[in-house]
Amino acid sequence: MSPSSATPARCSIARTLELLGDKWTLLIVRDAFWGHSRFSEFTRSLGVASDVLTARLAMLVDEGILERRAYRQEGSRERLEYVLTEKGKQLHVVIGALGQFGRDHLPRPGSTSPEYTDETTGEAVYLAFVTDDGRRVPASTLHVQQGAPAPAGDPQG
Amino acid sequence: MSPSSATPARCSIARTLELLGDKWTLLIVRDAFWGHSRFSEFTRSLGVASDVLTARLAMLVDEGILERRAYRQEGSRERLEYVLTEKGKQLHVVIGALGQFGRDHLPRPGSTSPEYTDETTGEAVYLAFVTDDGRRVPASTLHVQQGAPAPAGDPQG
Repeated sequence: MSPSSATPARCSIARTLELLGDKWTLLIVRDAFWGHSRFSEFTRSLGVASDVLTARLAMLVDEGILERRAYRQEGSRERLEYVLTEKGKQLHVVIGALGQFGRDHLPRPGSTSPEYTDETTGEAVYLAFVTDDGRRVPASTLHVQQGAPAPAGDPQG
Repeated sequence: MSPSSATPARCSIARTLELLGDKWTLLIVRDAFWGHSRFSEFTRSLGVASDVLTARLAMLVDEGILERRAYRQEGSRERLEYVLTEKGKQLHVVIGALGQFGRDHLPRPGSTSPEYTDETTGEAVYLAFVTDDGRRVPASTLHVQQGAPAPAGDPQG
């Protein structure tokens, strides 16, 4: 097995990248967070080719990120829409991180950024590295250690 | 201009995806966080083709994510290594989000995940949505609103 196929699958970062794959997949997930659910809504929002959209939606359903739901508009046949599962909603942190970096470090006139708030209090909310008791840790003292895989004899392994 | 070229560039999420583009680019950034800096280290870690690695490193330098530094090993000619800039280090939040999602939602036997700690106290650190005063906001009460672009007459626009 080549390093390119063996190495990424063990690393949690690489696994997420393998799942989310290309730009369209993450933009479909972003649109789902905005409340888009119908094929026509994704097409209009993204300008993505129908065959690409069909393939990406099917993959996201297979992976448990989106689920299909039937709906019927007055006078039309039943159609399917795509909504985030509980697992899919956990991608908030990935979508939020991409938006926060773009807003802070890739400024562009007339640009848009999603705004996160706590719906119970209306307070602004942002992504940060924090300790268990909520203390924010600045990038300057953040230490990252590459994870070690479980030993070969590990019952989980 | 087609929606696919006009729409993504305004959104901060889409801009970050355009910058980071494909899987290799993000894995190179991940490796740079692990302390890899030399061409041979990236090649060995990722199993990526030399021409692809050369192109991605040049793009990351152009975008101000990595910077080139000269180094010389005893008896060898001068070579270049690639290290994260201050802007590049801000991608911590994106890399951290990918790792956290993979660890929590794409489990795999023998998998690895980066471990984040505060180097001043040794405490474990994780990514979370928080308010200004450090209160953690659960996904269940997180509200996201799609950002509106600045008005056309806006001096920033």
